[in-house]
Amino acid sequence: MLKTPRTKLRRVPNRGTHERARIDAILDEALISHVGFVHDGRPAVIPTLHARVGDEVLLHGSAASRMLRALAHGVDVCVTATLIDGLVLARSAFHHSMNYRSVVLYGTARPVTGDDRLAQALEAFTEKLVPGRWADVRAPTRQELKGTAVLALPITEGSAKVRTGPPIDDDEDYDLDVWAGVVPLSLTASRAEPDPRLRAGIAQPPYVR
Amino acid sequence: MLKTPRTKLRRVPNRGTHERARIDAILDEALISHVGFVHDGRPAVIPTLHARVGDEVLLHGSAASRMLRALAHGVDVCVTATLIDGLVLARSAFHHSMNYRSVVLYGTARPVTGDDRLAQALEAFTEKLVPGRWADVRAPTRQELKGTAVLALPITEGSAKVRTGPPIDDDEDYDLDVWAGVVPLSLTASRAEPDPRLRAGIAQPPYVR
Repeated sequence: MLKTPRTKLRRVPNRGTHERARIDAILDEALISHVGFVHDGRPAVIPTLHARVGDEVLLHGSAASRMLRALAHGVDVCVTATLIDGLVLARSAFHHSMNYRSVVLYGTARPVTGDDRLAQALEAFTEKLVPGRWADVRAPTRQELKGTAVLALPITEGSAKVRTGPPIDDDEDYDLDVWAGVVPLSLTASRAEPDPRLRAGIAQPPYVR
Repeated sequence: MLKTPRTKLRRVPNRGTHERARIDAILDEALISHVGFVHDGRPAVIPTLHARVGDEVLLHGSAASRMLRALAHGVDVCVTATLIDGLVLARSAFHHSMNYRSVVLYGTARPVTGDDRLAQALEAFTEKLVPGRWADVRAPTRQELKGTAVLALPITEGSAKVRTGPPIDDDEDYDLDVWAGVVPLSLTASRAEPDPRLRAGIAQPPYVR
């Protein structure tokens, strides 16, 4: 299913895969996606919080209100999630690169409706940000659910691409007097900053490192 | 120029700006962009290394070969760069959010041609990955320049959006017995990994932390 003419891996195909497990792992690790859609015949790309739930990717609508307006019948989207893993320093300028993992999904995203499904989506987004958080926070009201725009995209057409490892230089360049290697990069949390308006006596929960 | 009907800030407009200095700072810090374009009437979004040079954003073509094929006359794109700055933990599920900085640019991207301009683009990409690197590496050959696909997008239509600071809760929720605050996130480098094929006696350069 995931492999279609549109998702056939053309360029450096050995870096690509249609394996669901690989795709899911990247979607689950990436905090945000970039959602592309066509607006008045022209492309638009908006960063959006997403959460995978089973065979769907849920897209938080708050960042994509334009996309979500008047879209009761669904919208053709491309959802791309990218993790940056490192800078790849080769001996030649030409072979510099990055290590990364990315997923590109295509399909029709449809609005999530109904209080139960919207509440489940809010739970998925909250747990995505910080696993364990949902149980501690005030649950959404009916009014808040009404104000929550969520799109669901089935995971049916897409692929993942991964680059790992050291630079690949031209054979003759390995003799050059140039340092080469990888600088690993990762999205890293630092010490939590309590809300200045936090009430006294509330302990920092364990899921906030 | 940057403000057009398409880039008018609709949602939470106080988070948005058309200021060039703010836009440039985000473009310069972000390592990659997500480039959206329309392919056979449908949206596609591809992660791509970019480098701002003056009033243009250069897009590395290696990740976007499909976009670059047969595009001598330019392609309508939306280029979005996003920096993730933190998880925003509110007292209610509904007000959970992220701190981020993002730029969305619209326009027509055109192929960069000519050895000089292509070499300048490769220099910009190399220096973007690691400032100071260009002087140390083997310069591109004529053949490599021929194999380098680069698109240039003028910075003329776009906007930036920034969310910073603590959660914004509903007034009555500040009394709840729920921890609230921000977990800062940033893309962080760790110790460089020398290429296993690195020749003995080559010191790690100072620009590789």
